Amino acid sequence: MKAVIILSGGLDSTTLTYDLKNQGYDLFAISLNYGQRHKKELKMAKRTCKKLNIPHKIINITSLNSVLQGSSLTSPNIDTPHGRYDEENMKSTVVSNRNMILLSIAAGYGISIKAEKLFYGAHNNDAAIYPDCRPEFVNKLKETILIADWHRIELEAPYLYMNKIDIVKRGKELNVPFEDTWSCYEGKETPCGKCGSCVERAEAFKLANMIDPL
Amino acid sequence: MKAVIILSGGLDSTTLTYDLKNQGYDLFAISLNYGQRHKKELKMAKRTCKKLNIPHKIINITSLNSVLQGSSLTSPNIDTPHGRYDEENMKSTVVSNRNMILLSIAAGYGISIKAEKLFYGAHNNDAAIYPDCRPEFVNKLKETILIADWHRIELEAPYLYMNKIDIVKRGKELNVPFEDTWSCYEGKETPCGKCGSCVERAEAFKLANMIDPL
Repeated sequence: MKAVIILSGGLDSTTLTYDLKNQGYDLFAISLNYGQRHKKELKMAKRTCKKLNIPHKIINITSLNSVLQGSSLTSPNIDTPHGRYDEENMKSTVVSNRNMILLSIAAGYGISIKAEKLFYGAHNNDAAIYPDCRPEFVNKLKETILIADWHRIELEAPYLYMNKIDIVKRGKELNVPFEDTWSCYEGKETPCGKCGSCVERAEAFKLANMIDPL
Repeated sequence: MKAVIILSGGLDSTTLTYDLKNQGYDLFAISLNYGQRHKKELKMAKRTCKKLNIPHKIINITSLNSVLQGSSLTSPNIDTPHGRYDEENMKSTVVSNRNMILLSIAAGYGISIKAEKLFYGAHNNDAAIYPDCRPEFVNKLKETILIADWHRIELEAPYLYMNKIDIVKRGKELNVPFEDTWSCYEGKETPCGKCGSCVERAEAFKLANMIDPL
């Protein structure tokens, strides 16, 4: 079955890519360059697609930043907050309506190639801080996408009720090369170990009794 | 009340802009350059905003054309497409999921500037050809946008149950300078008079007993 996957190059979407490939989906990956500091994730996405022999599109949508709220993920003037995801300061990492924009574009791609499914790797831990990762948002968006075109494409977020630890464990079962995934929000050579994304990743590996190859 | 309006530069959205300005809204206009042949509409949008003293953003999203149906444009910044487009896709003139993409971006803008409303000029005649102009789509999208962010912004399409004739009449009441609006799908200096958009416009003016200044 033909399916589009939004592949950021992070741990969640990369694991999901391996998962779906393993299930036999005919995958088409799309990555969005929205001016994130952590562009390294796009290189990781490219590497994964090459390894798995998946067609890959990287779309530059940085032109949108002139109308979207300054986020610490895209603005060099705002420091990346350190600490846990559930803290108030993490809200500066929100890019206005980011997921809906990414999903609309990916749905357009899926409609163009007549894919039947559109996958993305939202999970349970994200929902606390990102409104557009909540199950009610995902479900409503799914209903909207189903009637956006004469061609029906179903949005699926299979990890929506899993947490990061579950995903790390799932990745281990699938032999996902975690060194090909990038989580850190800082744009440096090695992970900072302090941002919300690094902290979450480290905790997940620890609780899963695994060692992060990065 | 602060509101964002998607202003294409066509007759419908221009009339709606005059309508909302007349109602006292604090308007912020956004126009999208998605590689349409009829770029002239963007010049018209600019002119209207200047006349009405409305802040105006024009966003270039032509990079999306490498993944959206019915387009031959590709950006040098994007990897060579691997997609398998079939003949039928290539012939289509509908831009896949266009409205949802435009509205998602405009909603992101609205959320950024804490606008309370997001307006667009979809009307009754559009619904027959464009699935993403149907009332059920607009309503579902409205529900989705309302939960996309902690800031609530309401999508409104006040002309959804009006036809083109009603809009022309409304424009006349509001003294809209119709010479500042562009409908023709061709990218020429003067309207072709033959495309679907020209035919619809001509009929509307005729049935409203008015003369089109273009």
